[in-house]
Amino acid sequence: MTRLHDSTRRGFASDNYAGVHPEVLTALAEANEGHQIAYGEDQYTERLGEVVRQEFGEHAEVYPVFNGTGANVLALTALMPRWGAVICSATAHIHTDEGGAPERVSGLKLLPVPTPDGKLTPELIATEAFGWGDEHRAQPLVVSITQTTELGTLYTADEIRAIADYAHEHGMALHLDGARIWNASAALGTSLRAFTADVGVDILSLGGTKNGLLGAEAIVVIDPSRVEGLVYLRKMSMQLASKMRFVSAQLLTLFGGGLGVRSAGHANAMAARLRTGLETMIARGEVPEGSLSFSQPTQANAVFAVLDQDAADRIREKVRFYDWDRARGEVRWMCAFDTSADDIDAFLRVVHHELGR
Amino acid sequence: MTRLHDSTRRGFASDNYAGVHPEVLTALAEANEGHQIAYGEDQYTERLGEVVRQEFGEHAEVYPVFNGTGANVLALTALMPRWGAVICSATAHIHTDEGGAPERVSGLKLLPVPTPDGKLTPELIATEAFGWGDEHRAQPLVVSITQTTELGTLYTADEIRAIADYAHEHGMALHLDGARIWNASAALGTSLRAFTADVGVDILSLGGTKNGLLGAEAIVVIDPSRVEGLVYLRKMSMQLASKMRFVSAQLLTLFGGGLGVRSAGHANAMAARLRTGLETMIARGEVPEGSLSFSQPTQANAVFAVLDQDAADRIREKVRFYDWDRARGEVRWMCAFDTSADDIDAFLRVVHHELGR
Amino acid sequence: MTRLHDSTRRGFASDNYAGVHPEVLTALAEANEGHQIAYGEDQYTERLGEVVRQEFGEHAEVYPVFNGTGANVLALTALMPRWGAVICSATAHIHTDEGGAPERVSGLKLLPVPTPDGKLTPELIATEAFGWGDEHRAQPLVVSITQTTELGTLYTADEIRAIADYAHEHGMALHLDGARIWNASAALGTSLRAFTADVGVDILSLGGTKNGLLGAEAIVVIDPSRVEGLVYLRKMSMQLASKMRFVSAQLLTLFGGGLGVRSAGHANAMAARLRTGLETMIARGEVPEGSLSFSQPTQANAVFAVLDQDAADRIREKVRFYDWDRARGEVRWMCAFDTSADDIDAFLRVVHHELGR
Amino acid sequence: MTRLHDSTRRGFASDNYAGVHPEVLTALAEANEGHQIAYGEDQYTERLGEVVRQEFGEHAEVYPVFNGTGANVLALTALMPRWGAVICSATAHIHTDEGGAPERVSGLKLLPVPTPDGKLTPELIATEAFGWGDEHRAQPLVVSITQTTELGTLYTADEIRAIADYAHEHGMALHLDGARIWNASAALGTSLRAFTADVGVDILSLGGTKNGLLGAEAIVVIDPSRVEGLVYLRKMSMQLASKMRFVSAQLLTLFGGGLGVRSAGHANAMAARLRTGLETMIARGEVPEGSLSFSQPTQANAVFAVLDQDAADRIREKVRFYDWDRARGEVRWMCAFDTSADDIDAFLRVVHHELGR
Repeated sequence: MTRLHDSTRRGFASDNYAGVHPEVLTALAEANEGHQIAYGEDQYTERLGEVVRQEFGEHAEVYPVFNGTGANVLALTALMPRWGAVICSATAHIHTDEGGAPERVSGLKLLPVPTPDGKLTPELIATEAFGWGDEHRAQPLVVSITQTTELGTLYTADEIRAIADYAHEHGMALHLDGARIWNASAALGTSLRAFTADVGVDILSLGGTKNGLLGAEAIVVIDPSRVEGLVYLRKMSMQLASKMRFVSAQLLTLFGGGLGVRSAGHANAMAARLRTGLETMIARGEVPEGSLSFSQPTQANAVFAVLDQDAADRIREKVRFYDWDRARGEVRWMCAFDTSADDIDAFLRVVHHELGR
Repeated sequence: MTRLHDSTRRGFASDNYAGVHPEVLTALAEANEGHQIAYGEDQYTERLGEVVRQEFGEHAEVYPVFNGTGANVLALTALMPRWGAVICSATAHIHTDEGGAPERVSGLKLLPVPTPDGKLTPELIATEAFGWGDEHRAQPLVVSITQTTELGTLYTADEIRAIADYAHEHGMALHLDGARIWNASAALGTSLRAFTADVGVDILSLGGTKNGLLGAEAIVVIDPSRVEGLVYLRKMSMQLASKMRFVSAQLLTLFGGGLGVRSAGHANAMAARLRTGLETMIARGEVPEGSLSFSQPTQANAVFAVLDQDAADRIREKVRFYDWDRARGEVRWMCAFDTSADDIDAFLRVVHHELGR
Repeated sequence: MTRLHDSTRRGFASDNYAGVHPEVLTALAEANEGHQIAYGEDQYTERLGEVVRQEFGEHAEVYPVFNGTGANVLALTALMPRWGAVICSATAHIHTDEGGAPERVSGLKLLPVPTPDGKLTPELIATEAFGWGDEHRAQPLVVSITQTTELGTLYTADEIRAIADYAHEHGMALHLDGARIWNASAALGTSLRAFTADVGVDILSLGGTKNGLLGAEAIVVIDPSRVEGLVYLRKMSMQLASKMRFVSAQLLTLFGGGLGVRSAGHANAMAARLRTGLETMIARGEVPEGSLSFSQPTQANAVFAVLDQDAADRIREKVRFYDWDRARGEVRWMCAFDTSADDIDAFLRVVHHELGR
Repeated sequence: MTRLHDSTRRGFASDNYAGVHPEVLTALAEANEGHQIAYGEDQYTERLGEVVRQEFGEHAEVYPVFNGTGANVLALTALMPRWGAVICSATAHIHTDEGGAPERVSGLKLLPVPTPDGKLTPELIATEAFGWGDEHRAQPLVVSITQTTELGTLYTADEIRAIADYAHEHGMALHLDGARIWNASAALGTSLRAFTADVGVDILSLGGTKNGLLGAEAIVVIDPSRVEGLVYLRKMSMQLASKMRFVSAQLLTLFGGGLGVRSAGHANAMAARLRTGLETMIARGEVPEGSLSFSQPTQANAVFAVLDQDAADRIREKVRFYDWDRARGEVRWMCAFDTSADDIDAFLRVVHHELGR
């Protein structure tokens, strides 16, 4: 097969518009040839288990799956009986971007809470944390947070600890949607463990695809006493890979000083470069006053900006990205493992040119 | 990452114990680099659409997914309202090997029919094809067949046409589970189209992973007027790949004189070599009389044999394979794209040695 | 069997703490004896169909069911494909009091919108009405409103028309949860039709149990072109009564100048008497200033009041009722078909005594 | 409301074509008036709990529900995690007559086993009882039997004990669908307990409606350690009655020497009278040889007969009943609590007349 696409084009639409890191392709080739037991009894999945135990603690378990929605829905399902409900941010991916998968695949009830910045707090959780024992109310049994959030913001380890403590005190488990968990690790400058296992997270969705993999995510169970039947649920939810060695081999590239923090740290740095460049432009008065502002802090690999729709649309003709909330003129600019400093600088010039018109 | 496994070992357990054909890894590398729109608006998925229309007809649509269970459940769901039921063989993968996914993910009712060889006929279908309009009975609206079957048997195009005609006359659609559809194409010596689109199949699950891909299957809709909402169902059933270009690039390798028929034809030939070798052994009296027999014809890449359990277990110590029905002493030996003539000959020697003891 | 309970006790906890109107028991006896076809082909269900067509229009259809949750979930399910979502008030019964039934039984996604008074408006609906065609978002295809609302408030016919118009313009259907629809009819002084069929409601849940029936609700389909498969869905959702004649016979008592408006009007009047009595008490300074206030207008058979928790608990020792929002000191006092003026006056004396302490 | 139907007509179509026993209406009237806590905290439900503990053992629990499908689906769901499967007869009501409710409402997988007479045995169960621990197979965790069966046959207590022992030895629970459990009690001449709690049944669906109630069934949990969350499951499966006192009051009439055995025993006797009358007719040569035979023994309130379709249709013009298997000419004649000896004798005359033509 020959290349069908123009491989020189890049944009800021999403970290999953990017391709695959070359080290990942190498890892796939290494895992190839000969026979390995299908469905997870291979040596790459075994090694992944060891690596995950090193990272998250000796009781941790890992279940590779296909995609992030799969990881989230399975993790939440395994944590709850049929009558459970999940308290989450109203901007949580599970509520806004999974096409109703939690409800449809597992019959889960979500209890979304409005937040200013995509981050839950014990106080916000408390608005939906009640009614245990009342059969008329779907029972709140899990709190789900996203790190980094869908708005590009970041929880500190202490903030997560406070949520975990609140959840546990009220008989709820804590799930962390880590679609961009490596960006959080890079941004916080700590291990994954420091803001998950060490502060009370019970289960997490470990992202990979948005961070340079071809297609690999995993559920990491930090406290196995809280879940049941994940091996069955994965199969019956259609998330069990037959040739799992290739999923696990991808995930292995992320750990141990590998691609995980390296790629995410680079993406974060590119977002910071973009944010700084834009702020400088504003500070220097190079764009009309009020023509560009920011709706969220840039704490990882996203820049959320507010600008005139016409200007946004002109910029978009040259470099692809998404509106976040068109009514408010809010856009999202995402950086990926393969975003280059040149990409940023070229984009800054485009923004400058179009806003300056 | 370095290789963790012994890449020289091969067995007869399953065609998904095999790895990935080298041409597939090449295709992944070609599809890499730069940015492509996620979730299917990439150029590899577009090309796949063209290829599928060439193969299955100008109205055909293709929906890449992660795995076979995903393809089957989605195809069946898209064909039916919530109250539909599926008539299938009692040995159908959807009934026996998908962990209850059709029931759980989509609430589908299966109406399994016992068969001698895994193949349905109009007469067998008729035993469950009744009760339309009666709200007490889940409504039979789809017939699902598997080609080649879970028992390694093969439908002729005419047999499928007869089933399609019966189904359509009774207001039912016809789904074909093509996890091993390429083996059928190679065995029949015809195009995929000749035993699907040309004889009345409405939708099919197109296999890839069992035929040398890393992990890629697809739903092919031959008659789009029979389905609804597949694009939503795929997402909400957690089967939507973000970096879909890499799924589509794998599938593209199968078509157009590519790997599809070539790899499957090789696997079929290896199964035939195994079957012939075993039959010769029996004919020559090299194994004790009655110590080895066959429970199904070998029409594609599987040999179903019956032999003494102790002998089976001794053979298995040297070469891995599965019991199919331990109570009956039935085993299954599968060949894959990478099975070599030497593998077969070495296995024949092992069988000869252990049965001869 | 002899009576096991003290039939003189009454309170303000809920309209379903009340028993059955004597005319309903008479209707059950009339429908009894001899054989009638089960599952709805009886003459009482046939008559109910005629009555419903007279009330709601010649195309209207009626499907008796067991309870309100059944009516709501079935109505919403019948309106939507598997990928649909429902925009509702965050205080809607379907979101807060049905134990997750919409999600679990039908996989429905709810998109709850905060409201001050339990009432949606086009502007409020607009906050969740977007994303059609985007597979990542559960598709908003239905708006559900409650009349009278869970907070005792009332939509005017014009307000419902505005919502219906907005919904239809955006390709959505309008469902009305009429658990207390007869209270609305009595309060508005109009037919049911005037604020449903005449202003664009497509389907409604017709309440009965809260208005003096033993246990009978129904789905009324005003626009049959919008629904599919209700007869199958009712069965498979476990809402099909075998001896349906007795469900339909109950519902028949409500129509045609019967119990429906009469009982609901009485309950409304009793709530008004309670509200007026309390307001008079406040106006006359008979209770300490600020010790009692109202959180919602009393437009039907509910009084929502805010008072000191200790006082509320003392009152509750004498007459049963529920906290609505304990954090805010909000309580709910409900009147039923059997609430008497004496009940109200006695309750007012209790309130006066306990608040005055 | 006035009577709309001809109350003198009776037939043999179904025991739920019959109305309500007068004692049941009396019980409803006794339970009426005044206020009782809704949703099951009333005194009739409390008394029902006592009665059930007397009948089934001190740990037994009872959960009133609306209908038999509700009882079955809830009982099975409460016994199993999401990955469980149910082994049942291929003629089981849950497989053939519940519109797919087990699959749709709870995602349950059924493993139906063909049987000659609707009765399972350990040997028959064994054909589907395997695969525990294998994630590809829905896990068989419950055996469900029906007593009396859908074919009118009866298990002895010893037969049920053998099934219970087999199930428990293999880690499965035993559910009994007792839609006609009172007919079994009357036929066996024992208490309900003798063939349920005393022989290892873990949970049962207690029928009522088919035995003269208006609409009331219940789940009886004999071994509460085997179930979880029934109180939540009942609500979220839309089977929670608000005015539960009236459901419980109906059920109370069945126990303690009440209607349960009395009505069922009468129905059984009428079926025996019908069977004997028909056999006598055959023995005496009053009908043409071979024109009438029986496909099942008459062990409770059903007669399954095989006769010429034209004759069957002529008989049906005068007295309503159902074909059971039209292809085989099999019909079902059901007796109810209100079937009279005159009804039987008149029917015998009709059969005699039509078959004799």
